[in-house]
Amino acid sequence: MANLATAITALIESKKYGTLRDILVTMNAADIAALFDDLEPEILPRLFRLLPKELAAETFVEMESDSQETLIKGFSDSELKEVIDELYIDDAVDIVEEMPANVVKRILAQADPDTRKLINELLKYPDDSAGSMMTTEYVELRPNWTVEDAIKTIRRTGIDKETINICYVTRADRTLYGYVTIRRLILSQPDVLIGDLAETTNVISCKTLDDQETVAQMLSKYDLLALPVVDGENRLVGIVTVDDAIDVLQEEATEDIEKMAAITPSDKPYLKTGVFSLYVHRIPWLSILMIAAIFTELVINHFSNLMSVEFAPFISAMLLACIPMLMDTGGNAGNQASVTIIRGLSLGEIEFKDLPRVIFKECRISLLAGATLAIVNFGKMMLMYVITYHNNFNDQFTPYLLIAVTVSIALMCTVFLAKFIGCSLPILAKKIGFDPAVMAGPFITTIVDVTSLLLLFGLALMLVPRIG
Amino acid sequence: MANLATAITALIESKKYGTLRDILVTMNAADIAALFDDLEPEILPRLFRLLPKELAAETFVEMESDSQETLIKGFSDSELKEVIDELYIDDAVDIVEEMPANVVKRILAQADPDTRKLINELLKYPDDSAGSMMTTEYVELRPNWTVEDAIKTIRRTGIDKETINICYVTRADRTLYGYVTIRRLILSQPDVLIGDLAETTNVISCKTLDDQETVAQMLSKYDLLALPVVDGENRLVGIVTVDDAIDVLQEEATEDIEKMAAITPSDKPYLKTGVFSLYVHRIPWLSILMIAAIFTELVINHFSNLMSVEFAPFISAMLLACIPMLMDTGGNAGNQASVTIIRGLSLGEIEFKDLPRVIFKECRISLLAGATLAIVNFGKMMLMYVITYHNNFNDQFTPYLLIAVTVSIALMCTVFLAKFIGCSLPILAKKIGFDPAVMAGPFITTIVDVTSLLLLFGLALMLVPRIG
Repeated sequence: MANLATAITALIESKKYGTLRDILVTMNAADIAALFDDLEPEILPRLFRLLPKELAAETFVEMESDSQETLIKGFSDSELKEVIDELYIDDAVDIVEEMPANVVKRILAQADPDTRKLINELLKYPDDSAGSMMTTEYVELRPNWTVEDAIKTIRRTGIDKETINICYVTRADRTLYGYVTIRRLILSQPDVLIGDLAETTNVISCKTLDDQETVAQMLSKYDLLALPVVDGENRLVGIVTVDDAIDVLQEEATEDIEKMAAITPSDKPYLKTGVFSLYVHRIPWLSILMIAAIFTELVINHFSNLMSVEFAPFISAMLLACIPMLMDTGGNAGNQASVTIIRGLSLGEIEFKDLPRVIFKECRISLLAGATLAIVNFGKMMLMYVITYHNNFNDQFTPYLLIAVTVSIALMCTVFLAKFIGCSLPILAKKIGFDPAVMAGPFITTIVDVTSLLLLFGLALMLVPRIG
Repeated sequence: MANLATAITALIESKKYGTLRDILVTMNAADIAALFDDLEPEILPRLFRLLPKELAAETFVEMESDSQETLIKGFSDSELKEVIDELYIDDAVDIVEEMPANVVKRILAQADPDTRKLINELLKYPDDSAGSMMTTEYVELRPNWTVEDAIKTIRRTGIDKETINICYVTRADRTLYGYVTIRRLILSQPDVLIGDLAETTNVISCKTLDDQETVAQMLSKYDLLALPVVDGENRLVGIVTVDDAIDVLQEEATEDIEKMAAITPSDKPYLKTGVFSLYVHRIPWLSILMIAAIFTELVINHFSNLMSVEFAPFISAMLLACIPMLMDTGGNAGNQASVTIIRGLSLGEIEFKDLPRVIFKECRISLLAGATLAIVNFGKMMLMYVITYHNNFNDQFTPYLLIAVTVSIALMCTVFLAKFIGCSLPILAKKIGFDPAVMAGPFITTIVDVTSLLLLFGLALMLVPRIG
């Protein structure tokens, strides 16, 4: 792409507009948009004017909002009007939502009155709702029409609809009656009534205020190409198409991943996001987690003073040296459980009612995993003893053995605790209305870190021989 | 769902098959499948027989492979044949891939010869390839046909095709010529030639051996409902539909999330996976990471002995106490960078050629973040000094100040290093053919942990006043 961008820039500079047009029309809108996003903003308007009307609109939709804004600012009023007229309503709304107020004003001024009214109506729905995601350009049929009537209507109006693959059947009061696929229409005789042909049981629909992630999951679960959106009175007001559902599913997965990695989510691609903006999205949790480590500091500080009095120096050193292993393993074990559960919650595979099953399952896993790790750790520590003290094998054997036992028990308890908190916290967080992905990391780390250290030092004071 | 399952079981026991059928036919295939997966396996065959033929096949496809196997074992040969005849080829292949050999044999024996041949052909493609994902049931038109011919063909054969929304146009040698949407066909005059109507530039296609994730990303990027799959000679051999692409995208996101959390990915939902299987998927990385902590142990062991000789006890204690904070912050900072980059690589937003840009960006972010955290940490440590030593404020001020400076510098360097490794390692791993999500975690943790400890102790030996 980088070489293509260079070539395009060179062609622009030498004013070879014919060649440029020939190159651009062989490309897909998504690829042209990616190319435009890589070019210098000031040459965009000249390039954009080379595109045929339809391709221009498709490309415009696929571009980053920064580049869209640059282009709009470079458009004449008539150029702006031409692009807006070509856009589907849901795309127009998405663009308007990202623009500053003065640009929005210009867009709305250039849109024709019907479009302006629709955009304004759709803008009223909350961000992330089905209403803000839907388009109003669907095919609407009536039960008393024949297949022939329906196909005539589609021929007359279909060119402006986002999809004609599924047509929606509404009653006279516009409430949703059912749907009929274009396949069914084509395979039927012309005189059959739409009301007899339409699928009317199992018609899946969503409400305007439903969350966009739930809506996208419905399209995925039921393998739909489009989902009708109804208002409080079951009147059809729009449809959500599968291409938008895919985008939402991808965005939501990215958001979950970012939250799990203690990043405040952002909806811009990494390479398009500025350094300062990335910094702002990352620093809050880094700071909070750093400050939360104060609890582990206090615990270590307290016990290291105590240990220097109670234990021989080599024992204190060994206990301190295994802290990172203990904390890392606890963190990893908790993370495995919480991440699995958070993803299950996102995909709708796990619900609140599954909490007892999840806890029972994780408890059994953690016993298996804890026991395995404890045995591996015990073996590893004894092996290190043999390697380190090979000269005087029997010298410190008993205290060393007891330290290994202490660490192994602490490890097993830590894994159990980490898995328990890791699996239950996200489900509880979701139940009380918090975001499970945001809540999990910091809490689990802090609770598990502090508890595992208290366990380690507590067990050491009980099991390991003290001075004197 | 739990209550519905109970009700269904009760109805089965009292043999109320009429009521059961009435309930089931109002439900969607995906919901019935979820219900069936919750029921006792032995009642499934009886319930399944109540479903109308088409709904039965749709439900069968949506079920977990365990339940499918139970059902197949309960089917008579003619029942099995009926279900297989209703399935789309790609779904049949997906099911066959999950079954044990004896069940596969029975399925193939009951399939009609054409279907059997197709299934066997599709089974030859590697798992996770476009070939294993595609269906062969698409509408194929010729350029010299008229729209009327085409619509006649669709009417005659369309009922068995997975989609008629996009029809593919091939030459006499079956090489891909272009495509035409059903919308375009319906909106055109009957005597127009398909060759004139078809879109022939910008026809996006993939090869049979392309990776399924790449293919799914293409459907998402270009907003396609279906993507043609061609063989080495550009002959059309199948299509991939958007519903399967969504499933692949969701699975791949889950896999990435699992790998980032140090879990070996599995494609079964959590609640359907046994405890031992979950244990097996989690224990390898837990063990490896625990054993990798041996390096940090050696570093701490070495320096804690050295420190007890070189520094006053309260200084050693303070340095040791801040180890968890330093390691956690390093881990979090590295994780933020690596997770962002891994997701960008998965979504195709970041490529190898972007490595210098990514490194430059992360270096600037890490300087900002490192400096912020160092200042916050310095402030926090001085505040703790005031709180802890409020009785004799000036007593240990100089050594305390120097420790705070030491820890803050070590912290800043750790954040820089963590971000640098976190952003570059996944890109390099992908370049040399490793999975970035698997590689990142363990390596970053181990390198950053060890280096940050060496930095902390090294700086302390240089900056903090020693005994005597």
